[in-house]
Amino acid sequence: MAQGVEERARTADRSDARVGQLPRPYLLFLGDTVEAGFAKTAFGLRDWAPELCIGEYALPSARISLGLPKLSPSEAYDRGARALVIGVANSGGFIAEAWVPALVDALEAGLDIVSGMHAKLGQIAELRYTAERLGRRLIDIRTPPANIPIATGLKRSGKRLLTVGTDCALGKKYTALSIARAFAARGVATDFRATGQTGIMISGGGIPMDAVVSDFAAGAAELLSPAAAPDHWDVIEGQGSILHPAYAGVSLALLHGSQPDVFVVCHDPSRTRLLGDEDFAVPPVEEIIDLTISLGRRTNPAIRCGGISLNTSSLSDADATSQCDAESARLGLPVADPVRGGPAFDALITDCLKA
Amino acid sequence: MAQGVEERARTADRSDARVGQLPRPYLLFLGDTVEAGFAKTAFGLRDWAPELCIGEYALPSARISLGLPKLSPSEAYDRGARALVIGVANSGGFIAEAWVPALVDALEAGLDIVSGMHAKLGQIAELRYTAERLGRRLIDIRTPPANIPIATGLKRSGKRLLTVGTDCALGKKYTALSIARAFAARGVATDFRATGQTGIMISGGGIPMDAVVSDFAAGAAELLSPAAAPDHWDVIEGQGSILHPAYAGVSLALLHGSQPDVFVVCHDPSRTRLLGDEDFAVPPVEEIIDLTISLGRRTNPAIRCGGISLNTSSLSDADATSQCDAESARLGLPVADPVRGGPAFDALITDCLKA
Repeated sequence: MAQGVEERARTADRSDARVGQLPRPYLLFLGDTVEAGFAKTAFGLRDWAPELCIGEYALPSARISLGLPKLSPSEAYDRGARALVIGVANSGGFIAEAWVPALVDALEAGLDIVSGMHAKLGQIAELRYTAERLGRRLIDIRTPPANIPIATGLKRSGKRLLTVGTDCALGKKYTALSIARAFAARGVATDFRATGQTGIMISGGGIPMDAVVSDFAAGAAELLSPAAAPDHWDVIEGQGSILHPAYAGVSLALLHGSQPDVFVVCHDPSRTRLLGDEDFAVPPVEEIIDLTISLGRRTNPAIRCGGISLNTSSLSDADATSQCDAESARLGLPVADPVRGGPAFDALITDCLKA
Repeated sequence: MAQGVEERARTADRSDARVGQLPRPYLLFLGDTVEAGFAKTAFGLRDWAPELCIGEYALPSARISLGLPKLSPSEAYDRGARALVIGVANSGGFIAEAWVPALVDALEAGLDIVSGMHAKLGQIAELRYTAERLGRRLIDIRTPPANIPIATGLKRSGKRLLTVGTDCALGKKYTALSIARAFAARGVATDFRATGQTGIMISGGGIPMDAVVSDFAAGAAELLSPAAAPDHWDVIEGQGSILHPAYAGVSLALLHGSQPDVFVVCHDPSRTRLLGDEDFAVPPVEEIIDLTISLGRRTNPAIRCGGISLNTSSLSDADATSQCDAESARLGLPVADPVRGGPAFDALITDCLKA
């Protein structure tokens, strides 16, 4: 390793600073998305940074809405928007050809474009030429910091909580943001650590874990939550699932590099098959708990499950409460939906913070 | 996903063709390496492609030897060498500044340079200028194919064997090459699938798994062992270890994408701490077996352990035999050292091939 971790951390800080300079506020672009799970960037921004979201803009073939004003790029510009954010999180992170005319319209209307996709905006010739001609910016935030070190696995000071999941796109970011907010409300020194494009857009910092070269993925996770004061908590946004056939490697690197003291399993009881991969069943919560402990104790022998975050968006209030209670009794752990909050979520927070 | 898997496979083929055009034979460069485990590229080429290896070349501070003729670059050129191969596999894959004068000497002597490091040769200005001035080639083989798809996890036809390990650099490539050779000797249609720089240099094809962006790592593994005839075997070179604090993510992506029917655990009983990470104990073989089955059955419910490849290089013949026998009795599985071969290795091969 040619440089020390501190120097790398400074590299990451520079990257974060760049993200902090994003043109704002935003028009959220939904493309041709037909399933809400594939627009989690847009939903996340709406929920966690509403003051940044002027409106939404979608192709006629889209079948979802954020409930924001539906605006054309020029209408959004007139209301103050300064960037169109691609709010889609599709499998593969590509920029669909069908979107390009709408993106060109946005540039013509005066908006910069902010993207968290794997594909780079500037690789699309029409966008590159139009942006150059008009003096607009094409901003790709899914670019990890340079010179990430290989992970050491060594224990760092401070406390860490990681959200993990039974699938993608069921609440790991939302849960981490909610827990970080609740910790802070109890006077605990806390940082939310973003690992995906939406979290980075919301918080202005972080590392896009899935864009890191495999050999350095655990090292990136170590960089993300550096050594801190003994009573400081990093609340780290999880990625994928340890049993997802495409993304488990990212999840495991994040688990080992995060060395969490506590993890919270995120689960949607209404989802029986993996999102976008119907051939696979969603695994049971217990299997995720067992595997996370078996693998995570490698870098933190004291790792424990702090509880379950249940996504009950498909249930009535009464059904949500009874399902959380039943799961809590069955698993012997706190179970709550952070969207609903209440005493169950308070109990989950208390359990996560206990020594 | 914009393109199909077949089109990606053609992309990979083009990459392989490039590797097949490497200038040969080789002078093997050992740098300033003091521990054999960090020169596994050089040892692998010596053992598996001896006809390509003219000699070895090291800095005065190095403390290892391959037992090949010690030659300067110009002596090697006079004996027919056409490329210097960087035979080092260090943590992080960097090109040390201390090596640069020796690499420049090689270019001056008429040799091209072949590297499997993460760092690119052309990023070092002195190498780039010298190569341009003299018309030499700087060849980086640790470059994955373009446009790797996201993994689907779906079952492919054909049989697959993956070598896994309790640590890095203890025989996963050697074991896979030995098993592929033994399968072929029994008349089984077999392909060795390389996942690291040395295997790619030996076999002329493959994908450098640890250089793939995390989100695509399992997809790269799917591309590496495409659908094949039902009785065809791919024998896939493993990487890292599912319990290595830096590389476990790569190992898990390779496991899921390879969907092996059979895996063989590689272990060195003389190694008690991880290579280059002394803070961590080498995990027990049984723990690796259990975790590999728990995780691997996600993409192949029929996954089973075919046996153990024991690296007995530190033992006498008699001790090696008794240790293999004792481990076999303890685990109820075939245990053999492929370097020693013999009836124990035959039994391992028979077990791997049984339906």
